[in-house]
Amino acid sequence: MNLDKLAWNADGLIPAIAQDFASGEVLMMAWMNREALQITLDEQVAVYYSRSRQSLWRKGETSGQTQQVHEVRTDCDRDTILLLVSQTGVACHTGRRSCFYRALDDQGEHALTEPLVDPATLYGAKA
Amino acid sequence: MNLDKLAWNADGLIPAIAQDFASGEVLMMAWMNREALQITLDEQVAVYYSRSRQSLWRKGETSGQTQQVHEVRTDCDRDTILLLVSQTGVACHTGRRSCFYRALDDQGEHALTEPLVDPATLYGAKA
Repeated sequence: MNLDKLAWNADGLIPAIAQDFASGEVLMMAWMNREALQITLDEQVAVYYSRSRQSLWRKGETSGQTQQVHEVRTDCDRDTILLLVSQTGVACHTGRRSCFYRALDDQGEHALTEPLVDPATLYGAKA
Repeated sequence: MNLDKLAWNADGLIPAIAQDFASGEVLMMAWMNREALQITLDEQVAVYYSRSRQSLWRKGETSGQTQQVHEVRTDCDRDTILLLVSQTGVACHTGRRSCFYRALDDQGEHALTEPLVDPATLYGAKA
């Protein structure tokens, strides 16, 4: 795959949506640079680029909550990636299955789901 | 809803994913500014911001392919929007239901679906 065909932004990044392969649930959105996408294609595990840490982010490397990639898609403008994944455990650092757990309306926001696991257990905090 | 709580980017925009409310299919990803999101919340129809035209983009205004919004969600970091929508017709300007119709692998890319409608009929071209 020639990754030059994709519409990388001015920072050399492209947004990547992760969707549960089985349920269709949208789990998260993160960013990839070329190296992250190439590794994702090569290894069939989701690798992103952390804008805050400015480094590759091998999803689940610390938490164990990895994403096995079934398919990598792009859209009509080739400026967004969609990953169909099997999520081990939970995608969200709050311990929820999906990061998209807040509903917005004119009144404000409210949580749609509660954490399935204690976030402290995901990142190696000692009991 | 106080939209200042959301993590708008340096251009005052936030990415918005549209997902089919019934099927779970991810239809498209586009961008919103505050005005677009406020109208979307108020009117329950998807309004985006066109970065190329630098103006509000009332989805379907020209093509008729509107999106009725059932729910507006945001994620843990409040830097992405997820819309659950009922899509009239097709989301993609190519005439496909979803913009994410290209699969990528090491060999290159290939289309997963064919257009359901002729794009020329979507944008008022004369026969």
